[in-house]
Amino acid sequence: MNLRIPGPTPCPPEVLAATAREMVDHRGPEFGSALKRVSSGLKEAFRTANDVLILTASGTGGLETAVVNTLSPGDEVLAVSIGNFGDRFASIAKTYGADVTKLAFPAGQAADLAAIDEALGKNSRVKAVLVTHNETSTGVTNPLQQIAEIVRRHDALILVDAVSSMSSIPCDVDAWDLDVVVSGSQKGWMVPPGLAFVSFSPRAWQANESARMPRFYLDARKAKESLEKNQTPWTPAVSLVFGMEVALDMLEAEGWANVYARHQRCADLARQGAQRLGLKLLADPAFASNTVTAVWSPEGVNVSELRKILREQYDTVVGGGQGDLTGKIFRIGHLGLVHEADVQAAIDALAQALPKAGYAPVAAARG
Amino acid sequence: MNLRIPGPTPCPPEVLAATAREMVDHRGPEFGSALKRVSSGLKEAFRTANDVLILTASGTGGLETAVVNTLSPGDEVLAVSIGNFGDRFASIAKTYGADVTKLAFPAGQAADLAAIDEALGKNSRVKAVLVTHNETSTGVTNPLQQIAEIVRRHDALILVDAVSSMSSIPCDVDAWDLDVVVSGSQKGWMVPPGLAFVSFSPRAWQANESARMPRFYLDARKAKESLEKNQTPWTPAVSLVFGMEVALDMLEAEGWANVYARHQRCADLARQGAQRLGLKLLADPAFASNTVTAVWSPEGVNVSELRKILREQYDTVVGGGQGDLTGKIFRIGHLGLVHEADVQAAIDALAQALPKAGYAPVAAARG
Repeated sequence: MNLRIPGPTPCPPEVLAATAREMVDHRGPEFGSALKRVSSGLKEAFRTANDVLILTASGTGGLETAVVNTLSPGDEVLAVSIGNFGDRFASIAKTYGADVTKLAFPAGQAADLAAIDEALGKNSRVKAVLVTHNETSTGVTNPLQQIAEIVRRHDALILVDAVSSMSSIPCDVDAWDLDVVVSGSQKGWMVPPGLAFVSFSPRAWQANESARMPRFYLDARKAKESLEKNQTPWTPAVSLVFGMEVALDMLEAEGWANVYARHQRCADLARQGAQRLGLKLLADPAFASNTVTAVWSPEGVNVSELRKILREQYDTVVGGGQGDLTGKIFRIGHLGLVHEADVQAAIDALAQALPKAGYAPVAAARG
Repeated sequence: MNLRIPGPTPCPPEVLAATAREMVDHRGPEFGSALKRVSSGLKEAFRTANDVLILTASGTGGLETAVVNTLSPGDEVLAVSIGNFGDRFASIAKTYGADVTKLAFPAGQAADLAAIDEALGKNSRVKAVLVTHNETSTGVTNPLQQIAEIVRRHDALILVDAVSSMSSIPCDVDAWDLDVVVSGSQKGWMVPPGLAFVSFSPRAWQANESARMPRFYLDARKAKESLEKNQTPWTPAVSLVFGMEVALDMLEAEGWANVYARHQRCADLARQGAQRLGLKLLADPAFASNTVTAVWSPEGVNVSELRKILREQYDTVVGGGQGDLTGKIFRIGHLGLVHEADVQAAIDALAQALPKAGYAPVAAARG
């Protein structure tokens, strides 16, 4: 199967084999050594000296961890949203009693820097800014470094959803001075879903001391204290940590710069391939994501039908649209274990499936 | 390795192979079918017509799910504790603002029925009773059916930690009228850690409608709505669900009555074996657990040293004590993938390791 959704991504056989290792004592030396290795690999990948916590949870659990460990009910929060996952981050903060102002931008657009600056300038009480680095629902990558500079100038915390960017798209936690940054194992890390990774800056830990939102399972301080002993506070997803150990070996052997370049090439190929078929892309080209490409469904094509043809006749799985974009777009994932040939195969399949779904591509897929 | 801790337990090779399957779309038909099969298998194992939610979390996340989805800050809660995990359940409720009265019993004892009845009789405002079915830290199984009868008479909700009992020790959710019941994949289910299973009775769902504790990642209603479409609200631990599919096939083929009987035999062997070595057991024999046996460390024996000898010289891993019992007991796990020979091998290893740790067993291990 050519699994071209924006996560879970295909995993290397070596990683899958590692996830099938026999169980060990999660408080014993074998697991301690695996956790230590993953922890140090994560620090390198996040480009940070901060603690990177390893939690047994989906990315959404990681986002909740960011919010509940740094904020108190009533705190003012600016939630920058460019899509479904930005909305979700805002909902989490609201659920836990934050006073959330949402700054939303149209689907396909990145966040506007001046608008963020203005919103923060108008309200000096904003304690934290929530921002999505890479919006998986629209295939847009926000200019995170510039956003962080603005947030820093206004002296607020910046909590970042980097679930679908970290490990595939450069994200320099320390250089960009990001306070809390969240990722998840099923994205560029090439590991099955079930682990969330969350980095906390010293500023975030300071905020933690007075943060009164309730938390227990997702208590970052407990996770930090356990991690110092190469443990986790609760029984962790042992097999996924074993998978991460091998995946990090592979990614580091390739070299992070090469990993990013490979994602760039795959993304270019996806965008060019779709456009050569006469399809229109959702994302503003200046901010198009290197991990997922959202494509407008052509007039007269039923997205569910197109996805079904791709799956059943071409063994190719692409994502659908989410929220308001359901039925209007489909999404091609190109992150994790992905090479140009995988993307080209998906484009080739699309070229053949589209006529069956009622649309005639304007040109041959290979141009 | 003879992994004799009370979870994670060893997993059958067939289960581990299933966890290493290639990734699929978590919103697609292959995963939907796996989730449906696991969901129906869980209902059978829980002996319930209730919804059994499948969450990507440790057992502790399952306990939090039970609390935050049924209660509001300020609600009065009676927390029956016979050990570390009972204390944890109480802490979760307290963290989220419940008014918790703890009814604690000495280590090794089960909860006293008259004391629970009396506590509830004195306070008709108690909204929920938290109770541990099988206390993993002491190896004691509470008389859950009788406790449930008392709680029902006083018209409170009963929230049950069955993490280390369900699937190994009979626990009849519907017959005993239990409101919320929690288990975890790494126990008797023979699957690596990372999934929590939580059943909600109609009464629990009714409580959910007015429950105001905040929750997002662990929102049971969202999980229920998604499960009705054979999905999960957030990206689930796909590989562990695949593992559960195979593990349930194996457990059902063995037959639940046979699974329970096997655990009973293994537990008898562990208890008799330890006693034949002259060792004393922590648990009241009337309530000794069929999944874990806690053994007092003999005078003069350092538990860490004993565990190290067992691990390094006999490839046998037993658990240590938790909390106040650290350094005083060790624990032999006998749940999940376990047969008499595994338990006998652990007893044999103990018979040889104990003299090296400074204690002379009183008799040969095989009696």
